Amino acid sequence: MKLTLSEVAAITGGEPDGNPALEITGLAPAEKAGEGELAYISDLSGKIRLDDVKASCVILPLAAKGAPRACKGGVVYAANPQLAFTLVMRKFAEELSPKRAPGIHPSAVVDVSAQIGAGASVGAHCVVEKNARVGEGTVLYPNCFIGENAVVGRNCLFYPGVVLRENCTAGDRVIIHPNSVIGADGFGYIQHEGRHEKIPQLGRVVIENDVEIGALTAIDRAALTETRIGAGTKIDNQVQIAHNVRIGKDCIIVAQAGIAGSCTLGDGVVIAGQVGVVDHVNIGSYSVITAGSGVMHDVPEKSVLFGVPARPHRQAFKILAIINKLPEMYDFFKKLKKQSEAK
Amino acid sequence: MKLTLSEVAAITGGEPDGNPALEITGLAPAEKAGEGELAYISDLSGKIRLDDVKASCVILPLAAKGAPRACKGGVVYAANPQLAFTLVMRKFAEELSPKRAPGIHPSAVVDVSAQIGAGASVGAHCVVEKNARVGEGTVLYPNCFIGENAVVGRNCLFYPGVVLRENCTAGDRVIIHPNSVIGADGFGYIQHEGRHEKIPQLGRVVIENDVEIGALTAIDRAALTETRIGAGTKIDNQVQIAHNVRIGKDCIIVAQAGIAGSCTLGDGVVIAGQVGVVDHVNIGSYSVITAGSGVMHDVPEKSVLFGVPARPHRQAFKILAIINKLPEMYDFFKKLKKQSEAK
Amino acid sequence: MKLTLSEVAAITGGEPDGNPALEITGLAPAEKAGEGELAYISDLSGKIRLDDVKASCVILPLAAKGAPRACKGGVVYAANPQLAFTLVMRKFAEELSPKRAPGIHPSAVVDVSAQIGAGASVGAHCVVEKNARVGEGTVLYPNCFIGENAVVGRNCLFYPGVVLRENCTAGDRVIIHPNSVIGADGFGYIQHEGRHEKIPQLGRVVIENDVEIGALTAIDRAALTETRIGAGTKIDNQVQIAHNVRIGKDCIIVAQAGIAGSCTLGDGVVIAGQVGVVDHVNIGSYSVITAGSGVMHDVPEKSVLFGVPARPHRQAFKILAIINKLPEMYDFFKKLKKQSEAK
Repeated sequence: MKLTLSEVAAITGGEPDGNPALEITGLAPAEKAGEGELAYISDLSGKIRLDDVKASCVILPLAAKGAPRACKGGVVYAANPQLAFTLVMRKFAEELSPKRAPGIHPSAVVDVSAQIGAGASVGAHCVVEKNARVGEGTVLYPNCFIGENAVVGRNCLFYPGVVLRENCTAGDRVIIHPNSVIGADGFGYIQHEGRHEKIPQLGRVVIENDVEIGALTAIDRAALTETRIGAGTKIDNQVQIAHNVRIGKDCIIVAQAGIAGSCTLGDGVVIAGQVGVVDHVNIGSYSVITAGSGVMHDVPEKSVLFGVPARPHRQAFKILAIINKLPEMYDFFKKLKKQSEAK
Repeated sequence: MKLTLSEVAAITGGEPDGNPALEITGLAPAEKAGEGELAYISDLSGKIRLDDVKASCVILPLAAKGAPRACKGGVVYAANPQLAFTLVMRKFAEELSPKRAPGIHPSAVVDVSAQIGAGASVGAHCVVEKNARVGEGTVLYPNCFIGENAVVGRNCLFYPGVVLRENCTAGDRVIIHPNSVIGADGFGYIQHEGRHEKIPQLGRVVIENDVEIGALTAIDRAALTETRIGAGTKIDNQVQIAHNVRIGKDCIIVAQAGIAGSCTLGDGVVIAGQVGVVDHVNIGSYSVITAGSGVMHDVPEKSVLFGVPARPHRQAFKILAIINKLPEMYDFFKKLKKQSEAK
Repeated sequence: MKLTLSEVAAITGGEPDGNPALEITGLAPAEKAGEGELAYISDLSGKIRLDDVKASCVILPLAAKGAPRACKGGVVYAANPQLAFTLVMRKFAEELSPKRAPGIHPSAVVDVSAQIGAGASVGAHCVVEKNARVGEGTVLYPNCFIGENAVVGRNCLFYPGVVLRENCTAGDRVIIHPNSVIGADGFGYIQHEGRHEKIPQLGRVVIENDVEIGALTAIDRAALTETRIGAGTKIDNQVQIAHNVRIGKDCIIVAQAGIAGSCTLGDGVVIAGQVGVVDHVNIGSYSVITAGSGVMHDVPEKSVLFGVPARPHRQAFKILAIINKLPEMYDFFKKLKKQSEAK
């Protein structure tokens, strides 16, 4: 793929400076970019010095306009260089991503009652069951399973091996990475005469518009009602979301986090990697739970928590610092103790 | 689906009170139930007030008999309302769960030497290899893989993408959720001349009757003998069970827990979410390891442990409470220290 | 399968002692082995007493030569009994592992532009896309997906359900266990006007020779460059390796560990189970991070770390020991505090 400096400026809405016909054929991080590549620098006072950048073209912040520069290549000035670069990446992605042929692959098994929207692509060995619906422009890579009455919206992208069980629904522009499982039974039993009697899981999962779900993630169906993932929420790989959980809009849930049954998350919550949240906890909007924390109680809005159990960030770091001093405290404690016993 | 009050009473063995012909068409949690729905309340002194319940029919504890009630709908009195409600849920599940056609789907690849029991359903794109056996009434959803000589018992339910590798066996009524992997190689190497030389994993996995295994869970085959999951044990999503582990009967293992190689668990053990157990540890029967704990040593029967490293529950909570007071202790320590140095 | 004492000696390069025609038909741990089985003991002063071993044949260390032994069966003396036993296990594995028919299964969907090497086996329902290459002697079990331009080297073994997305490459003799996902999009967004805007992930994953990857593991493609797994590295089940990570040679990464974006690991690093490493951390060669630890900062070469946050091993254990004494310290603290306030 090739873009000229003018085209980069047009895509990003930035201001070009240099030969408008200058061509870039690739994208790279600023510290690695070379001949023919486009890079960006968000902060000219940061680690990367502009003079060291070997890219043919660099996207710089508007504030850099007019400053002297040694770099001979082209420049595009943009209000938000990372965003501008992302827009160019999207142009490359459009061009370079594998194209999926529209239509139903002959090896796919699609029930006669299922509805497949115009322009949708149902890949090899997919299975689409009774009364399921796949929206216009949606791509199912090979080996996906769409259960009875399940609904996949428009312009979704399901990578290989995704399982969406019966009655579950995904909105529009939902992306699900390989081998993730949506709608498996929630983990519910009742103890009776020493055995675990299964509680059927009759609910479903509802995934709203613009959600992205990583690889190997599990979102369980509700016991009676629904497990819901709010619009715009992004979930990483190997995340576990148990039954009856309700997640708000535009949340971020990083890899290997686990949210136990019946929790609710507000909007804009960030759950970092390997966090655990015990069941029935409510996490207020715009709270941040940092990596590896264990949340055992409700969390007010806009909290920043850390640790096991999760404590307010400052308190947690204060305690951690003191824990490092425990050996010194303990030595002094032993000395005092001995003195006190000697009295 | 529709059930009358009389039918609900018959299914649950409870005592009906109200119009025997009253119909319910759905099930819901008491706080959300409305017209036409059945709910239950286990504890009338709990959060949910009977007067607020809008369900057409409620299952109540026997103790509630005779008490005045404002609710106009029907009531069924049962010794264990949750169990009674579960029985009704099962009736709904029977009716509403997708029906799988018995027989082998034409797209499945079943070796001529494999045996498929009467009434079993082998879904689209399944692969059943040489000498494998699938029992009567068992359902394999699409895309399952049953390896050479593997055995699946009667009335099992394997959801899409389950992999059961060669020589492994599952008993009767075993449920495995999508994309779980049974019988992958255990993680075994011997260091030799600076490299990791693979130790072949020649053993197998044995899953006893009535085990349920969540989505995306891995249970590794033994190096030489077997990894065994005892009858009635229930395992959640994304659990890792390493080679040579032996798990007793009726255990519960919650999501994202990991049990390292050669551990043994007695009967009725509960391992909560995200727990880690290091290798070669024995956990006594009826012990409970609470969420996020790390078990590094053998655990006596009926222990309740918490924390990293896992300590007896009371001790762990005592320590946690004191850790919250560390800032105060540290300030005092600094003061004493200064005084002592001043002398 | 049958091996004579002579054959065992030949395979292992050990010295036989006993009837050269003595036959063994199975392998077992020393404490469980019986008639017809081969076992090994590395350390005669260990838990297992030679006199208790009921195996027909035992591999013993060279140092045991000449020592009196009650055991009537055969013996093979070897410099490294475990390694010798491993070599016999490999012989059994060769014989007993399911044989995969070379060629492309008729149900596989292989693009005309894809190249399949001589003797390779492409299993049922596999999908191999445009311009992908599968090397000589490589086995793809059923339901694998090999994306556009992806490359699988020679003599690789991909178990069912493995997904290798477009442009990613695996070297020679790479083993990947079921349902693992190589090359899913890294988790990258830029915040813009309150929404998470997706940053396309245009890079790839490079897996070098002799890497083994467990079941249900995810290795994400880089944003622009590559995520790289060094030669000889072994990765267990349910591991998460984020985008742009670079892992050196001969590392060990145990189950459920997570390595966040842009980390680098040197050679010979050991990451134990459930460890978390935050993003942009560098871990020096030959360092060991013990189970459940959380790494938040760079780690020098040959460190041994433990805990959350990960501290040098000795320091971490010292602190843990003191934490156990906190109740005692706290009682004393309260007493002193009271005395001090009384003054």
